[in-house]
Amino acid sequence: MEFQEYFPIWNQLNTVQQNRIQGSLTLRRVGRGTVIHHDSGDCAGLLLIRTGQLRAYILSEEGREVTLYRLFERDMCLFSASCIIRSMQFEVTIQAEKDTELWVIPSETYKALMEESVPVANYTNELMASRFSEVMWLMEQIMWKSLDRRVAAFLLEEASIEETSQLKITHEAIANHLGSHREVITRMLRYFQNEGMVKLSRGKIELINAGLLKDLCEG
Amino acid sequence: MEFQEYFPIWNQLNTVQQNRIQGSLTLRRVGRGTVIHHDSGDCAGLLLIRTGQLRAYILSEEGREVTLYRLFERDMCLFSASCIIRSMQFEVTIQAEKDTELWVIPSETYKALMEESVPVANYTNELMASRFSEVMWLMEQIMWKSLDRRVAAFLLEEASIEETSQLKITHEAIANHLGSHREVITRMLRYFQNEGMVKLSRGKIELINAGLLKDLCEG
Repeated sequence: MEFQEYFPIWNQLNTVQQNRIQGSLTLRRVGRGTVIHHDSGDCAGLLLIRTGQLRAYILSEEGREVTLYRLFERDMCLFSASCIIRSMQFEVTIQAEKDTELWVIPSETYKALMEESVPVANYTNELMASRFSEVMWLMEQIMWKSLDRRVAAFLLEEASIEETSQLKITHEAIANHLGSHREVITRMLRYFQNEGMVKLSRGKIELINAGLLKDLCEG
Repeated sequence: MEFQEYFPIWNQLNTVQQNRIQGSLTLRRVGRGTVIHHDSGDCAGLLLIRTGQLRAYILSEEGREVTLYRLFERDMCLFSASCIIRSMQFEVTIQAEKDTELWVIPSETYKALMEESVPVANYTNELMASRFSEVMWLMEQIMWKSLDRRVAAFLLEEASIEETSQLKITHEAIANHLGSHREVITRMLRYFQNEGMVKLSRGKIELINAGLLKDLCEG
């Protein structure tokens, strides 16, 4: 059993609690692109990522998307189990951005632990505060930063996650991450190309001057 | 001592814990307009509102504001004590919108309780989830709703809070709430006036057809 190495407060649980988690846990594999959680009514359980990458986003009625944050190896996804906290009243969609292996802790198991264990309750607090902080950061980006800076920041973040300066991503996908439109993103990327920051080719964006992009972000 | 009637989990604390809170509690009166909390380094403590009204907002470097949410009688403000949760890494400014009486629970007292009491830890979870939900709602408004709907929704909310259809509020103040500019708000309000929704006069906005405003919000 590897789970215990990934669950940061494992050693703060007693044996009965550890057994209860181990007995209810399942390991699930999901392919890239799979929507794991959509409706807030669907209280699937907490997800702990073993390998891979998830994306949390919100969706407008017309189908526009904005990426709220990403989850990586060892990250825990709380919002797929929104029923465990009564006041959590918003809908977030969770999608696998890469092939992903994750453990599912059933909501009832986790909720019962939260109601008897101070470490579990406070760990949940920290998780929520951490996602809240990411959403607040994004809110500030949207409110105060112009789109050129947001696109530049997105390209740099993407290059850092993928560990390459050759991004395979469509303009449509970037628009979805940023809550914008494809045409707007294409125009911006062409401007970046003219400025010598990127080189565009079919389905690919190459970062040829990350320094200029960073200057733009911080400018 | 009235505090115990306002603090919803009072009866779930033991006598030692109750005494610890009562012994460290202070009642504070702040005038309308007072900024109670600004810097995240300033960990003043948790605020429980006895009477009055607070506003939580974020501030850009150029001084533009966006209201995140309001707190009323019996509401607890968590973000004036951000040091109690390590992962809470964002800055929110808290201002008294009316003359306000509030109890301050020192951060150390509350943090110590969170670390020993499951009810306190889970109550904190609920508080955070509830603020998080309000911010997510706002985020959706900003991303998906056009400004005309946001202004209409703001006027209706304000009329409901103040229990009057005669709002004493400047265009500048509305712009601050919505993260917009005064000129933009003035233009929008003139449009509303032409449509017969409001009547504008010096420092006042009268809602003369709330039904039309509601239609606009929901449209």
